[in-house]
Amino acid sequence: MTFSLTVREHLMIAHSFRGDVFGPAQRLHGATYLVDATFRAAALDDDGLVVDIGRAGDLLRDIVGALTYRNLDDEPDFAGVNTTTERLCQVIGDRLAARVRDGALGDVHLTAIAVTLHESHIAWASYEVAL
Amino acid sequence: MTFSLTVREHLMIAHSFRGDVFGPAQRLHGATYLVDATFRAAALDDDGLVVDIGRAGDLLRDIVGALTYRNLDDEPDFAGVNTTTERLCQVIGDRLAARVRDGALGDVHLTAIAVTLHESHIAWASYEVAL
Amino acid sequence: MTFSLTVREHLMIAHSFRGDVFGPAQRLHGATYLVDATFRAAALDDDGLVVDIGRAGDLLRDIVGALTYRNLDDEPDFAGVNTTTERLCQVIGDRLAARVRDGALGDVHLTAIAVTLHESHIAWASYEVAL
Amino acid sequence: MTFSLTVREHLMIAHSFRGDVFGPAQRLHGATYLVDATFRAAALDDDGLVVDIGRAGDLLRDIVGALTYRNLDDEPDFAGVNTTTERLCQVIGDRLAARVRDGALGDVHLTAIAVTLHESHIAWASYEVAL
Amino acid sequence: MTFSLTVREHLMIAHSFRGDVFGPAQRLHGATYLVDATFRAAALDDDGLVVDIGRAGDLLRDIVGALTYRNLDDEPDFAGVNTTTERLCQVIGDRLAARVRDGALGDVHLTAIAVTLHESHIAWASYEVAL
Amino acid sequence: MTFSLTVREHLMIAHSFRGDVFGPAQRLHGATYLVDATFRAAALDDDGLVVDIGRAGDLLRDIVGALTYRNLDDEPDFAGVNTTTERLCQVIGDRLAARVRDGALGDVHLTAIAVTLHESHIAWASYEVAL
Repeated sequence: MTFSLTVREHLMIAHSFRGDVFGPAQRLHGATYLVDATFRAAALDDDGLVVDIGRAGDLLRDIVGALTYRNLDDEPDFAGVNTTTERLCQVIGDRLAARVRDGALGDVHLTAIAVTLHESHIAWASYEVAL
Repeated sequence: MTFSLTVREHLMIAHSFRGDVFGPAQRLHGATYLVDATFRAAALDDDGLVVDIGRAGDLLRDIVGALTYRNLDDEPDFAGVNTTTERLCQVIGDRLAARVRDGALGDVHLTAIAVTLHESHIAWASYEVAL
Repeated sequence: MTFSLTVREHLMIAHSFRGDVFGPAQRLHGATYLVDATFRAAALDDDGLVVDIGRAGDLLRDIVGALTYRNLDDEPDFAGVNTTTERLCQVIGDRLAARVRDGALGDVHLTAIAVTLHESHIAWASYEVAL
Repeated sequence: MTFSLTVREHLMIAHSFRGDVFGPAQRLHGATYLVDATFRAAALDDDGLVVDIGRAGDLLRDIVGALTYRNLDDEPDFAGVNTTTERLCQVIGDRLAARVRDGALGDVHLTAIAVTLHESHIAWASYEVAL
Repeated sequence: MTFSLTVREHLMIAHSFRGDVFGPAQRLHGATYLVDATFRAAALDDDGLVVDIGRAGDLLRDIVGALTYRNLDDEPDFAGVNTTTERLCQVIGDRLAARVRDGALGDVHLTAIAVTLHESHIAWASYEVAL
Repeated sequence: MTFSLTVREHLMIAHSFRGDVFGPAQRLHGATYLVDATFRAAALDDDGLVVDIGRAGDLLRDIVGALTYRNLDDEPDFAGVNTTTERLCQVIGDRLAARVRDGALGDVHLTAIAVTLHESHIAWASYEVAL
């Protein structure tokens, strides 16, 4: 038995990629990412919840808010890193996991966090990490 | 190797929640839930199917039909229970599983059932149970 | 030449309908409505905008926030009124129009406002009013 | 009687806005735009078409291809112009209209072109121009 | 002031096209069409409705049901006609209009009917006819 | 830790089914399938990728292109096979897996491939195979 709860936000950034594999995406361009954060648990709490959806949404907005309306090429956190859709899933997923371990959602018993970023209507990436 | 088939229905209900964590959702309100029921199998049957989509759809409509256009606060089945999105996933998933075990879809060899309820375009929950 | 800008919110309410035509929806039930508010103009302003999307979003959230997490059957504004999807489009559209005329979006030159409410993935209604 | 045909593409760009109204979007950031181009006609041609969908798609890809994977702040065409979602609708719509008038879709009898750009799942803009 | 109500169905057919413009679509192939039928009115009725959504849905299902799971190349109604997406919008729209004029939705005061058929996530067509 | 990348294409085919279970779908009809191909890996490569999205898209288009605009009843590959949505997921998934093993995406370290086909807005199927 597995339960999950997902909340959606979005993120608008500029960036460029290094490496021939990226073709025209080596130029400075940008993206809107739809960001789906999924919280998994083996059981519901006494309120019938995986997590408090209000706190989950606030936490995701906080993490996404630290990235949005920026040129990721200028962010020290991403120096030397290609901020691919896959990589940004990991960044957001790991930041969520760290905050959950630090108690940002209270005393929850989550088993995993998954993050999906949709870069367009025809491409998306995901990352899942155990807690 | 895993196969799955998913059918979608929807459900319109009223309810309220008990507990400070729910904030304004403690008031009587309601929701449209998009209900996605997924049937999993390790192999396809002789017709090339996980399950007969017609029977799967009828079964889901039957279970959803017993819930829709109701105030869940007044339903004896949910006395003392917060009918959160996560909980309703479980209710529908367990009812589907019980009906499948009772032969409602015929002699099928399913490994699991998963149910996802979308409460809006920015929030959804899931429940998966092995068969 | 016509320009428009649309912002999306959502709304979760309980209500019931009076009249045989409504069948089982005469019972107390509820809905999530996706609310799309469209602002139309014949030209863009000096910033290249129909309206400031931030102010438009705040205005829509304000109007939607006065309705959400409520049982519309108990709201004095709707006494004796069936709060159908069509009617709620009109309520939200007329409230937006009144606020725009009162300057809530500043000195804008809008020609019309349209509101669409999606009650499920298979049904929606719209209302358009000239300004 | 009105007919229309719509084709969808997408576009990934970087840009920034000038003006206090834009708040954090004054910083260099970016967007994925889903681009819907609609061609309108009063009647269908002898093949039963508004336009040849293949040629319409090629034309839209050609126009979108000249914009994508770029920093619009560096494009001479947009010097001194805020490349808002509304404005980009107009740019793409006017370029489509000019190409249609020049025969890019053959001898068609279109009455209007409309362009919608979705900047996220919660905001989009449109532009319609008569032919 | 304009009101509208839309209901969605779907349709699965085989067909082929005649004419070089259709390229590989001259071969027998098929499509799922999402069918959106929109009913427009200048005012709501005493129940607060454009039309009874139940009757509207039944009418659309009836018309769509006469087309679905068929090879349109074999249907006498379409002899010598390319059943393009645009043309099928017109067929369904005109059948809806005829049935509405014959009282299939009761004594309604509709001003127009519009039909949109989505042939994929990247292409759709529409037809609108006054009543 | 799991990463995945998904790309979407579509496919338009005619076919019929053999077996009473299929009801009216025993007649020749057709479908548009939205085809989502997911590539899974335990780690990202040096470029920050699961796979090169350009090559992944080309590979999927190549496999889908060999099926589209055809009557699957006439394809030797499917003689005696019901080309159900589930079965087509497997066909596309196995073809992707074979091509990946043959190096079509270069020297990648994928753990699994999953394919989802949406046959309409209310039904879809999936297949996942380990690599």
